[in-house]
Amino acid sequence: MTRSAARAMETSPWSPREAELLAVTLRLLQEEGYDGLTVDAVAAKARASKATVYRRWPTKAELVLAAFIEGVCQVAVAPESGSLRGDLVQLGEVICDQARTHASTMRAVMAEVTRNPALNDVMQHQFLDQRKALFKHILGQAVERGEIEAAAISEDLWDLLPGYLIFRSIFSLRPPSRRTVQSLVDDVMIPSLTRLNR
Amino acid sequence: MTRSAARAMETSPWSPREAELLAVTLRLLQEEGYDGLTVDAVAAKARASKATVYRRWPTKAELVLAAFIEGVCQVAVAPESGSLRGDLVQLGEVICDQARTHASTMRAVMAEVTRNPALNDVMQHQFLDQRKALFKHILGQAVERGEIEAAAISEDLWDLLPGYLIFRSIFSLRPPSRRTVQSLVDDVMIPSLTRLNR
Repeated sequence: MTRSAARAMETSPWSPREAELLAVTLRLLQEEGYDGLTVDAVAAKARASKATVYRRWPTKAELVLAAFIEGVCQVAVAPESGSLRGDLVQLGEVICDQARTHASTMRAVMAEVTRNPALNDVMQHQFLDQRKALFKHILGQAVERGEIEAAAISEDLWDLLPGYLIFRSIFSLRPPSRRTVQSLVDDVMIPSLTRLNR
Repeated sequence: MTRSAARAMETSPWSPREAELLAVTLRLLQEEGYDGLTVDAVAAKARASKATVYRRWPTKAELVLAAFIEGVCQVAVAPESGSLRGDLVQLGEVICDQARTHASTMRAVMAEVTRNPALNDVMQHQFLDQRKALFKHILGQAVERGEIEAAAISEDLWDLLPGYLIFRSIFSLRPPSRRTVQSLVDDVMIPSLTRLNR
């Protein structure tokens, strides 16, 4: 994947007006939390009719998931630090920042996604597939640079770094710090990914 | 920590009658899910008065958390496989089994815990402290056996293995398999923990 391809993946599927509605939703989510958010409030704040919002996102859960994905994808540009370590640290820090900013939204989104197969599909295709491609891109570049062996990459564990950081951010009393990210990269990810190097 | 100390940590803090109420709660949770569970149904099923249940656990959230912790701790005996790899694989598989059996309960417990500081405290002191001690015990034995260097153990990342497996179990479309656990241990945990070995 080229740099421009990585950028293209980040392009929003929404019209400017839809993107605006999602931005308002995300802002209200941060202020009110998932339980406190109403579609009516989103429509009022964005000066849109409720029908406009409901036509595109028939349920609050769908609206919130779309807002979350849009908000998080906007800042998910592939890092190009020039080294595997640099790329992983940068990605880890972005994930921690996002998880901190959107913790209550993420908890709500995950709770909804796990009990709603349709949302699960949206999450998979509009978010996770893209995230997985991002990690593959970063690791592929490390292989090209000769930093790691291709065989050292585990397809099954592609989400180890984001998964653990999200776990720590939203379910533990110990939100991850910059040192957590560094330790995860230096003491775990790099030893794992370089284990087949001679 | 000796073997008997590890066992002692697992002892239930509840009277036999309380343990019975918690067992009934856990069974009903698996049948009905968190939203469907009522304290009334627990009392009826256990032939206890509602007052008895409420006296010990004033809210449904407290009752469910206690039932979850009790149910999960009962099977959390320290593995004694004789090798670090064996211990980690065994622990990983137990975590996956528990997460599969109690997935909806775990999602509900985590959602409640993250918004309720009192429950968070219970979770910390009655569950996480004990889990952390279990991992320290396993890693300490590996140091004693000369399998790893003490300096290779990261205090901050003690919950990497359980945290990632729980993330995969309850928030992803890809519940972890035995191969996931093996790959996590062989390709990640062991290379990380042995990285300082000469």
